Amino acid sequence: MPLTPEQLAEIEDLRATPRPTLRAVSEGAEAHLYRAHEVLDHGFVRVIDYMGNDAAIVQAARVSYGAGTKKVNDDSGLIRYLMRHWHSTPFEMCELKLHVKLPIFVARQWIRHRTANVNEYSARYSIMDREFYIPQPEHLAAQSTVNNQGRGAVLAGAEAARVLEILKSDAARSYDHYEEMLSQDGQQGLARELARMNLPANIYTQWYWKVDLHNLFHFLRLRADAHAQYEIRVYAEAIARVVADWVPVAFAAFEDYRMGGATLSGKAVAVLKRRLAGEVVGQEDSGMSKGEWREFTEVWG
Amino acid sequence: MPLTPEQLAEIEDLRATPRPTLRAVSEGAEAHLYRAHEVLDHGFVRVIDYMGNDAAIVQAARVSYGAGTKKVNDDSGLIRYLMRHWHSTPFEMCELKLHVKLPIFVARQWIRHRTANVNEYSARYSIMDREFYIPQPEHLAAQSTVNNQGRGAVLAGAEAARVLEILKSDAARSYDHYEEMLSQDGQQGLARELARMNLPANIYTQWYWKVDLHNLFHFLRLRADAHAQYEIRVYAEAIARVVADWVPVAFAAFEDYRMGGATLSGKAVAVLKRRLAGEVVGQEDSGMSKGEWREFTEVWG
Amino acid sequence: MPLTPEQLAEIEDLRATPRPTLRAVSEGAEAHLYRAHEVLDHGFVRVIDYMGNDAAIVQAARVSYGAGTKKVNDDSGLIRYLMRHWHSTPFEMCELKLHVKLPIFVARQWIRHRTANVNEYSARYSIMDREFYIPQPEHLAAQSTVNNQGRGAVLAGAEAARVLEILKSDAARSYDHYEEMLSQDGQQGLARELARMNLPANIYTQWYWKVDLHNLFHFLRLRADAHAQYEIRVYAEAIARVVADWVPVAFAAFEDYRMGGATLSGKAVAVLKRRLAGEVVGQEDSGMSKGEWREFTEVWG
Amino acid sequence: MPLTPEQLAEIEDLRATPRPTLRAVSEGAEAHLYRAHEVLDHGFVRVIDYMGNDAAIVQAARVSYGAGTKKVNDDSGLIRYLMRHWHSTPFEMCELKLHVKLPIFVARQWIRHRTANVNEYSARYSIMDREFYIPQPEHLAAQSTVNNQGRGAVLAGAEAARVLEILKSDAARSYDHYEEMLSQDGQQGLARELARMNLPANIYTQWYWKVDLHNLFHFLRLRADAHAQYEIRVYAEAIARVVADWVPVAFAAFEDYRMGGATLSGKAVAVLKRRLAGEVVGQEDSGMSKGEWREFTEVWG
Repeated sequence: MPLTPEQLAEIEDLRATPRPTLRAVSEGAEAHLYRAHEVLDHGFVRVIDYMGNDAAIVQAARVSYGAGTKKVNDDSGLIRYLMRHWHSTPFEMCELKLHVKLPIFVARQWIRHRTANVNEYSARYSIMDREFYIPQPEHLAAQSTVNNQGRGAVLAGAEAARVLEILKSDAARSYDHYEEMLSQDGQQGLARELARMNLPANIYTQWYWKVDLHNLFHFLRLRADAHAQYEIRVYAEAIARVVADWVPVAFAAFEDYRMGGATLSGKAVAVLKRRLAGEVVGQEDSGMSKGEWREFTEVWG
Repeated sequence: MPLTPEQLAEIEDLRATPRPTLRAVSEGAEAHLYRAHEVLDHGFVRVIDYMGNDAAIVQAARVSYGAGTKKVNDDSGLIRYLMRHWHSTPFEMCELKLHVKLPIFVARQWIRHRTANVNEYSARYSIMDREFYIPQPEHLAAQSTVNNQGRGAVLAGAEAARVLEILKSDAARSYDHYEEMLSQDGQQGLARELARMNLPANIYTQWYWKVDLHNLFHFLRLRADAHAQYEIRVYAEAIARVVADWVPVAFAAFEDYRMGGATLSGKAVAVLKRRLAGEVVGQEDSGMSKGEWREFTEVWG
Repeated sequence: MPLTPEQLAEIEDLRATPRPTLRAVSEGAEAHLYRAHEVLDHGFVRVIDYMGNDAAIVQAARVSYGAGTKKVNDDSGLIRYLMRHWHSTPFEMCELKLHVKLPIFVARQWIRHRTANVNEYSARYSIMDREFYIPQPEHLAAQSTVNNQGRGAVLAGAEAARVLEILKSDAARSYDHYEEMLSQDGQQGLARELARMNLPANIYTQWYWKVDLHNLFHFLRLRADAHAQYEIRVYAEAIARVVADWVPVAFAAFEDYRMGGATLSGKAVAVLKRRLAGEVVGQEDSGMSKGEWREFTEVWG
Repeated sequence: MPLTPEQLAEIEDLRATPRPTLRAVSEGAEAHLYRAHEVLDHGFVRVIDYMGNDAAIVQAARVSYGAGTKKVNDDSGLIRYLMRHWHSTPFEMCELKLHVKLPIFVARQWIRHRTANVNEYSARYSIMDREFYIPQPEHLAAQSTVNNQGRGAVLAGAEAARVLEILKSDAARSYDHYEEMLSQDGQQGLARELARMNLPANIYTQWYWKVDLHNLFHFLRLRADAHAQYEIRVYAEAIARVVADWVPVAFAAFEDYRMGGATLSGKAVAVLKRRLAGEVVGQEDSGMSKGEWREFTEVWG
């Protein structure tokens, strides 16, 4: 269980005393505030703050469309229109601040999304906790034989057991040594900024992460995708559930246009048009490479 | 007066119904919400939303400093420490969303600050209002004789009157022609995206502008500075008053370390040290150019 | 003609003396360096510098794929793969620096692309030139009746003549007054930072604009699109021709996957699949709004 | 030695064939191209490409200052003026692309500088090399007793020996296990994206890192500073030597105004002025906290 009784008490305390505000409020987001959504074995996602709601997207868009707007008189229709036509600035007017606990190898993927604000727990300043990500047996998968950056079948029992044993014992030993090097008991004690180098990439870190809704959708599109690594995808999915409650109309548009949609190359458009006209088209006369054709037929048969 | 009775009624309406929230609240910011602070002759700055307060800066910083923090046990001391040591990420955890009405030539300076979110009224989509910035006589200044990008003495009465007459009549004529070209009365009517090209740079536009506190401080340092053009400085000053109420501790640190402080070159440090040791130092033996020396002596005599 | 004999001489001078370099070279980009591609009546686009070429994209991608890469052994195939799977970082490893002369109303659209470096001619510091964009008669279009932010039929002759007369005379008068206010002949002379406010949005400005290839593709996708305003689209098209010579493989992939492709919502995917299965589907049973359906049928019939 | 004979041969090959270019050239940067500057025990910094030179900064600035510039007729003077007055955009017109090999714990600090382009070797796609950072004994320091995020005295011999033994043996064991888990010899072989989680933070990774000169100066100011962790500071220092050769005038201005300079709070300015007037001022009547006073007196006595 990732949360201590003290942390749970702190969360309850933060949730105990609503205060009046004149700002835009999202009931859906309020229900999430401070609560820890557990992810993996020791991780979590917590909403610390949010700015805006579905109406705030429309309000910002109306400035740019001003009094001239007549056609799109329905908020949902306008939000769908903005999403469909890649008008990103109104979505940037909403902001979400999360507290996330996550393994370092996940954090290293996550941080590649640069348009966000991050404040991470400092292992230079503080001592890391003894918490490591150890996968569940059903997530211990073999290297994919078709995708160089994916995973394939679940490992068989004996091999899985050996892997788990390695991960657990190496993590434990690394942390024991970390403490031993830091100790000032009968010795000087190594600087924290040096001792941390011995810790493996499955140790948990924490950060505050703040991002606007447009960039958050971009993150979700890449990281909640089936091709994302499982260990970051579960974070993206947990955040997606929060966003669905926070800005339900925008999230529905995102699901339709981004997550559930498809992007076609010019060649793919041509093939589909020929097929719609009744023609049978194969890879050889598609103009696509074998790789492209395989990806195309995964969607279109 | 920049606000219509309808707009004032809308503001009162937005302020009439506080709602409960569990988020961090800033009483100082709540008092500003939606109210229009008048700037120049038709402009304004309105707070539309905010995220965080002084405590939120400390809370974010504590993640990075974690349990190890012992020394800086006072929030104000920590905020001052962060500001002094250029730790920008905790300040990025606060966000402000403004509705601003401003002349286009001011907007063109403002937009050079790229790390912000902007949603501007679209003159492609909508018709611009007939509102132009006409300076007060005391702000009609001559070109500076010492600073290529500054202004000098106030214009004498007759010249000022001629300038005002030009600005007013050109603005009026441009707008009359704008309307005439747009008109569909007995003609096709020019597209809005083309007609707008006839409007001068002192016409007012509007936008939503959202920015984090770190980047807002950077904006204020440059634009509330005495060397900034008057017409953008008054916007920066209006925003600074909002920020002082929103995050008073952070703003006080900003005033001390950024606005009220000074930056010294290595050469300037050396000169000050020699002076403190009792030496008399002039430009020739300072290693500084004449321009640098003039700027140095403006501060240090 | 936008270029003076002095400017042409300067360009020839810059092109006269090749120097040896060990950096990656693009012959296609070298042929463009410093030459002014004329755009609109007084504008231009000039390549000032570039970094990288097609091979540099592959080289950067190989770092991330390292020694493990076996499958994609062809540079063109790898670049197409990267484009298809939205791997943007290798494209960010190329950079283009342009000198652009453009009307201010175009500059205001352009600057909304924030991930770029800009250094603009300062009307605070310098005096603007007397050059204004006056559209060709065939580009003087009426407001679109179906698209609030578009243009429709070309204006009829008499109306077009009136519009041209207004644009020309207002521009001339504004500039005369600008000079008159600046003049120090028998008067103090208004500060440049103030006088500029009288100039209309069709006056030309200039800037240096530097952008990486990924963000440049994003700019081109939006601004070389048929829905972009004509006056910015011609700049995007001029830049696109440069890019096609600079990084021909990457540009071909961009054309296929972005410019020539299509994005489908989940609902559109479902409709196409039903159609491919032989079903006749109309708007009512598509789940799409009328607007979405109109846009869908524009592509798919 | 970090470089293999194959890598050295590749570098020599890349340096063997200069090609003509019309672009701005920096002789100082050309001398560095592709060569590996060794950093730490297995790391390096290599210049892969650059854009611009000192003259390019001036050229970009002249666009914004245009024909009006009279005062600053000397390139060096202009560059110093731009640096002194925080005019950042001309410096953004230069760009540097580096290939860096560095320990992961250093990479995690480095990546906090978000305004840069990064393409990192993918441990999801490829197998990491068996290379770990093991500090030299003279860099094995104890935790600082006065600075929570710094290091103090060098560890005594026996303790240092124990630490080195731990770091070496844990690294070796982790890598052995990494290979064992990946192996497909008689087992399925764990996916690379999972196996990497067992590797410690002192393993070396590689990336391409591209940044503009303004943001590079910001990086150097923070990371070449005496308070930066030694293991990132040596990278910053290696890069600083490259920059000094690439843009010598801009680098000299940076050294004077940023690295060798000082930033004073309003309170510090007041204290210095009182001291210059002959007054003796102590912490109690300075208005500064004890921490601020200690930092102040470190510079000013």
